[in-house]
Amino acid sequence: MKKLINRPEDVVREELAGIALAHAGRLVVHTDPHWIARADAPVAGKVALVSGGGSGHEPMHGGFVGPGMLDAACPGEVFTSPTPDQMLAATQAVDGGAGSLHIVKNYTGDVMNFEMAADLARDEGLTVEQVVIDDDVAVKDSLYTAGRRGVGATVLAEKICGAAADEGRPLADVADLCRKVNECSRSMGVALTSCTTPMAGRPTFDLPDDEMEVGVGIHGEPGRERRPLASAREVVEALAEVVVDDLPYVSGDRVLALVNGMGGTPLMELYVVYGELHRVLEGRGITIARNLVGSYITSLDMAGGSITLLRLDDELMRLWDAPVDTPGLRWGA
Amino acid sequence: MKKLINRPEDVVREELAGIALAHAGRLVVHTDPHWIARADAPVAGKVALVSGGGSGHEPMHGGFVGPGMLDAACPGEVFTSPTPDQMLAATQAVDGGAGSLHIVKNYTGDVMNFEMAADLARDEGLTVEQVVIDDDVAVKDSLYTAGRRGVGATVLAEKICGAAADEGRPLADVADLCRKVNECSRSMGVALTSCTTPMAGRPTFDLPDDEMEVGVGIHGEPGRERRPLASAREVVEALAEVVVDDLPYVSGDRVLALVNGMGGTPLMELYVVYGELHRVLEGRGITIARNLVGSYITSLDMAGGSITLLRLDDELMRLWDAPVDTPGLRWGA
Repeated sequence: MKKLINRPEDVVREELAGIALAHAGRLVVHTDPHWIARADAPVAGKVALVSGGGSGHEPMHGGFVGPGMLDAACPGEVFTSPTPDQMLAATQAVDGGAGSLHIVKNYTGDVMNFEMAADLARDEGLTVEQVVIDDDVAVKDSLYTAGRRGVGATVLAEKICGAAADEGRPLADVADLCRKVNECSRSMGVALTSCTTPMAGRPTFDLPDDEMEVGVGIHGEPGRERRPLASAREVVEALAEVVVDDLPYVSGDRVLALVNGMGGTPLMELYVVYGELHRVLEGRGITIARNLVGSYITSLDMAGGSITLLRLDDELMRLWDAPVDTPGLRWGA
Repeated sequence: MKKLINRPEDVVREELAGIALAHAGRLVVHTDPHWIARADAPVAGKVALVSGGGSGHEPMHGGFVGPGMLDAACPGEVFTSPTPDQMLAATQAVDGGAGSLHIVKNYTGDVMNFEMAADLARDEGLTVEQVVIDDDVAVKDSLYTAGRRGVGATVLAEKICGAAADEGRPLADVADLCRKVNECSRSMGVALTSCTTPMAGRPTFDLPDDEMEVGVGIHGEPGRERRPLASAREVVEALAEVVVDDLPYVSGDRVLALVNGMGGTPLMELYVVYGELHRVLEGRGITIARNLVGSYITSLDMAGGSITLLRLDDELMRLWDAPVDTPGLRWGA
């Protein structure tokens, strides 16, 4: 294992210490239990957005805390759900009197722990809604998940709901919007190499030099099939066909296209993939009205990428365009 | 070789096509010869900033084109200098009447070709100044370079000079500022793995599983020494000691610290490195007043990272904080 870390058992704690130092004044990193919050939280009268999940997917979720996006994020150990006490403490810390929305990726541990946290928060008199994201069309029911897995749509939901919360919309509206983003989003990924978790110290799965894992999960879970390594063109056509046909996205649709790197993939390759995706969608009469190209929901050092489409309407586009100021996603008005 | 590309000989052209599509309206990508410019260039009366270099270091330089940073960037083939006709055409396209500054990383091919381009531009009646960046303290005179190599300080110079150009400062001032950034910056990197260029299809150099290359160049050039793999703490102490002692940075200094990933290194590890760097500098009485943590000047899929320090004064800090709006670096006022 070749990683710039110290002891594997300290990596999350030390990463969070680095985040606290690098973003002091903008983010607060609480320890025991771990959560990351906006420095100015709670924001009075605003619906608070809380997410979280295992570490190893950075910048998700901690990198998406800040004005226009999340109020707090709860990082678990690597590829391990955070615990209910983290989510409870984060929710208590950022609740601004308008209730909290928990945005939960659909993995069994996350769903169970977020549900438990919501129960505990309600016992404390807090108002909490939860939306589970499950946009990955690759497989139903896998190693970590009942139903579909939650992947790239989580980034889009956190951004769009963050903008809606900033507009002062009530909790039920923001939760409805989150469900809408999830319902209009579909994703699929491919791995060229396995990731290596610090504690295991060796690749999570074996992948021969001439094969790729189509439909891989963000923890290295198996996808739909092993296939011989193929060109970017063939890979994108294969992923896009499944993604487009699942919703389906149809001629005349405007979409947001996220081309996401898994952590070990250079930006050069992501732009090649974006060009291919543009071509495929254009051929089907689908217009990419907004895009995001980069490594936003990663799997440690895995080489590969994923494609997420979100069908846009004017409201979603306006909320996407609203200012955001987080370490991982930043733009102005 | 496992890459999301089509034919290796097409990768740069296809990457640029993807960039053109993804950033339409903000960037213009010219073909034959290749250059990337701000969509609103030339900006009348503003000093134009032009940089360039081999591809494979993305987001540098194309990702740094936009308001507050570069006016144009010239991408060469992978790890290959762009040609003088690219730089000449880019300079002609973005010159706004106040002259152009070429920011050149110190590699033999880049320096030679930029000099030729400047001569050609002057023959056309344009005013051009050039500043060569050479902040890498690892080695003097190597495979690609006479003298020290140019690395992370290039990102900082492009940002800071971009802000100065936006203030309407004249060419000689912006060039002086660029020299000042270079003179106050020092860098060094480490590779845990080699990069693999698309055309070669195999690792540029062999690096055993239990070794690292300390002082590696961004094209996989040899560094100072091979050492047994070590902890992030030991790696950062080794790099920081050389960097700090070279300028030297001394107790009481305020610095900007760039912790840069080489392309295949997860953000998690960069934050661990940042935490260690903060500790080392604090122990020497040096304050990190600004920081940047991420993959900004990369070496394709290389795992590893680099550290760059820039000694700040009030002027440099103000210019660093000025708004910037590029695909690779974005923040508001």
